Amino acid sequence: MVLDSSPAYSAGPRTTPTRLAERARYDRAAVHAILDADYICHLGFVADGAPVVLPTMYARVGERLYLHGSTGSRPLHAARECLRVCVTVTLNDGVVLARSAFHHSINYRSVMAHGIAHRVVDEQERRMALDALVNAPFPGRADDCRPPTPKELAKTAVIRLDLADVSAKVRTGGVGDDPEDLGLPHWAGVVPTTRGFAPPVTDDQGTGPVTAPVPDYVRQAL
Amino acid sequence: MVLDSSPAYSAGPRTTPTRLAERARYDRAAVHAILDADYICHLGFVADGAPVVLPTMYARVGERLYLHGSTGSRPLHAARECLRVCVTVTLNDGVVLARSAFHHSINYRSVMAHGIAHRVVDEQERRMALDALVNAPFPGRADDCRPPTPKELAKTAVIRLDLADVSAKVRTGGVGDDPEDLGLPHWAGVVPTTRGFAPPVTDDQGTGPVTAPVPDYVRQAL
Repeated sequence: MVLDSSPAYSAGPRTTPTRLAERARYDRAAVHAILDADYICHLGFVADGAPVVLPTMYARVGERLYLHGSTGSRPLHAARECLRVCVTVTLNDGVVLARSAFHHSINYRSVMAHGIAHRVVDEQERRMALDALVNAPFPGRADDCRPPTPKELAKTAVIRLDLADVSAKVRTGGVGDDPEDLGLPHWAGVVPTTRGFAPPVTDDQGTGPVTAPVPDYVRQAL
Repeated sequence: MVLDSSPAYSAGPRTTPTRLAERARYDRAAVHAILDADYICHLGFVADGAPVVLPTMYARVGERLYLHGSTGSRPLHAARECLRVCVTVTLNDGVVLARSAFHHSINYRSVMAHGIAHRVVDEQERRMALDALVNAPFPGRADDCRPPTPKELAKTAVIRLDLADVSAKVRTGGVGDDPEDLGLPHWAGVVPTTRGFAPPVTDDQGTGPVTAPVPDYVRQAL
């Protein structure tokens, strides 16, 4: 599946930053790690000449991103042929409070993937992708739920974006104040963000003979 | 500043969902509350015919969104005249694990704002917007740091998007399994997400006579 197995993506016109070039990353491991740390992306496409940015789930499998949705949704409908997209994933790691307003910043990791998204038609790949999407927040879940029926599958479209024209941008570290501001009396520092899960709320509609306990693959993520 | 002071935005062709219409919200209070709960948006625009989705900070002031960046950055440069944008803000509130793969979902609140962004040229509005951006994560910060110098201001561009063609989408609540699946033995429920701040890390480069304590406006957010 990996057409280019070099350890880094190639910088192209779309992935070469016009500024803050030191924040750009092209190595596959760094890009994959960011993509694997979340499951909500922002999908950009052009509709009637105007940009649209849609939050949606994604899953990475090797060098491919998979997204899904109703066959009736706008981008998935358009992607029957092909759809030019930009998929962006962003993790906010903290707020950087500098002594100067100008040097306030955010610590973040983001990935931007450009390319042509295609509808997945191969039924085996489609099922694999849907499993990957169900597994994205809690790996293991796809094997612990009822698989989709043919009718449900017919309502669901999957699109694929090959990771090729892709780069990451990362800001880490501390305050970037200018030396002449270090004596100012304002507090400066980084306030890291946290993200996690609260205790699960079990659905009370169950009518089965078994009241299943919260599964291990959920407990482990808490 | 508010041209249309009705309690709701008008649904237009871009903000009328093609599906899951019950998740759409147009009332200003709901839209404002979502926008005010975060400070990182995804800015979509079209460059050379292709979509670009850029994570960036924003601040809401009344019925306007302000974004900023280097005057050299692509969208801010393009917005000297005007730039068609879609600004999307998304809060992930939890993962919905249904008994059926098909009904897995995410609880979320999102706002999508479409329109033409313009560069702010009025110096007073620009300063106000920059203060709002510094205040976005921690209200009160703009008054407790060194204001921008003329040179810094010259490097910084601010763009404005009026909130008019805007809607929210919200999914809340529990599992949406079909009645015939309620007897299945798989655990089902919602795993709420949490987000917050970790203890601040004070910058150790300070050379001033005063070691400022972590300010109240940061402590209150922890």
